[in-house]
Amino acid sequence: MVSGALERHMTETPPTAAVLLIGDELLSGRTRDINLKQIATYLAPLGIAVRECRTVRDVQQEIVEGVNALRARYTYVFTTGGIGPTHDDITADAIAKAFGVGISERDEVVAFLTQRYAAMEQPFTGPRRRMARIPHGAKLVKNPVSGAPGFQMENVFTLAGVPKIARAMLEDIGPRLKTGKKLLKVSLRGKGLQESDIAEALGALEAEYEGVSLGSYPWFNSLEDRGVALVASGTDAALLGEIEQKLRDLILAQGAEPEKVGV
Amino acid sequence: MVSGALERHMTETPPTAAVLLIGDELLSGRTRDINLKQIATYLAPLGIAVRECRTVRDVQQEIVEGVNALRARYTYVFTTGGIGPTHDDITADAIAKAFGVGISERDEVVAFLTQRYAAMEQPFTGPRRRMARIPHGAKLVKNPVSGAPGFQMENVFTLAGVPKIARAMLEDIGPRLKTGKKLLKVSLRGKGLQESDIAEALGALEAEYEGVSLGSYPWFNSLEDRGVALVASGTDAALLGEIEQKLRDLILAQGAEPEKVGV
Repeated sequence: MVSGALERHMTETPPTAAVLLIGDELLSGRTRDINLKQIATYLAPLGIAVRECRTVRDVQQEIVEGVNALRARYTYVFTTGGIGPTHDDITADAIAKAFGVGISERDEVVAFLTQRYAAMEQPFTGPRRRMARIPHGAKLVKNPVSGAPGFQMENVFTLAGVPKIARAMLEDIGPRLKTGKKLLKVSLRGKGLQESDIAEALGALEAEYEGVSLGSYPWFNSLEDRGVALVASGTDAALLGEIEQKLRDLILAQGAEPEKVGV
Repeated sequence: MVSGALERHMTETPPTAAVLLIGDELLSGRTRDINLKQIATYLAPLGIAVRECRTVRDVQQEIVEGVNALRARYTYVFTTGGIGPTHDDITADAIAKAFGVGISERDEVVAFLTQRYAAMEQPFTGPRRRMARIPHGAKLVKNPVSGAPGFQMENVFTLAGVPKIARAMLEDIGPRLKTGKKLLKVSLRGKGLQESDIAEALGALEAEYEGVSLGSYPWFNSLEDRGVALVASGTDAALLGEIEQKLRDLILAQGAEPEKVGV
């Protein structure tokens, strides 16, 4: 049956993700982002591959466009930044607008934050109340670090921008995600290796092993301290083992010493 | 005259930029990008603001779509990555496709690389020749680090992904850029400050000073080591001086010590 086949195909399609980094400070050069890397690193063992990332300013229309472009295209979208108490924290409103829903204070968040600030003997001010504003229909995401929650709106997860908080929020999100087949990786470095000397052999190797992706990543600190890291990735462990041996041979053939590194 | 006024407006519109980061390694979590930060930092003193960044995989269609979306919207586009000698280095072809032009070996690059590899007593192999393939009509960008050039296609600059090389290429590009009014910045940190305590005052300050943008950036390492950095930016030095004093007062009023930091 066509519908059965289609359903089966859809179930087996590996889940994908996109990241939307929100914040003027990322585009001004003030801050070097680390959230993309930590989100990708968290998702990889779950078999969810990050396919695209966009970085936009604290401007509602740009956030809305980014969210809507990405949520239509990928299984999951993760946004970071703009959910704090200040005037430039506009992400919650932008998400509500992107989904065409309202936004207001969520009672349980008001109650939670009221208690939290009381415990710290700090006033629960107007700006702090802003952090209780959640788009209608969204599910909360726990923030064990500083209290104010993130939220999930359909396939879009909205996290804080502070890396430590964003990382903690992922732990609450993980169990909600549909996982894929885990992507396995092998990485070998060859000091002194030059990309152009091995390019042809690498291309041939990738053509030979379908389903395995090969990348070569040169580093260059000086003419003495340069080299190439080769990374093979795929879901078949046996195949990766074979490729690893071929990559070793390839590096040795260039007179370099293969060094296995973490990926 | 309308056309005169329009022309004047267009001349005075501040130049903008977008960055397109190309490479599977950025999306897999293997590599933490630094090129966005260094491009933004290079452009800021020239009065060119980076407005958007996208990160895409080594997939031709995704690079083409990214380049075409961004070059239509911003004064300049800077791409990084994918111009080396290996099979996954497909940026030059993607740029040619985005602009609908052909691509072939550029004689002067072949001559330059032939000489360079001869001087290093290394063979000028097929993969190395790939780095001489330049889209038709593109202007070269010098690479003083490792030789193989980047290139400029209309308002799109294609740089290497290795940060040291990308940074060096910017030096050759700078003189080609239309500059804007330099964006000035003041940044003050207040340890122990909490964003929510100053949010209202900040919002009022930004509303009072048109043309100045205020950002607040919390850090949080522990309950003891936390605080907020306040950043004011604008093109009017006198106005920024006034704001700096008001930000100092605001931090002092919270019982914290304002600390001026570089931006």
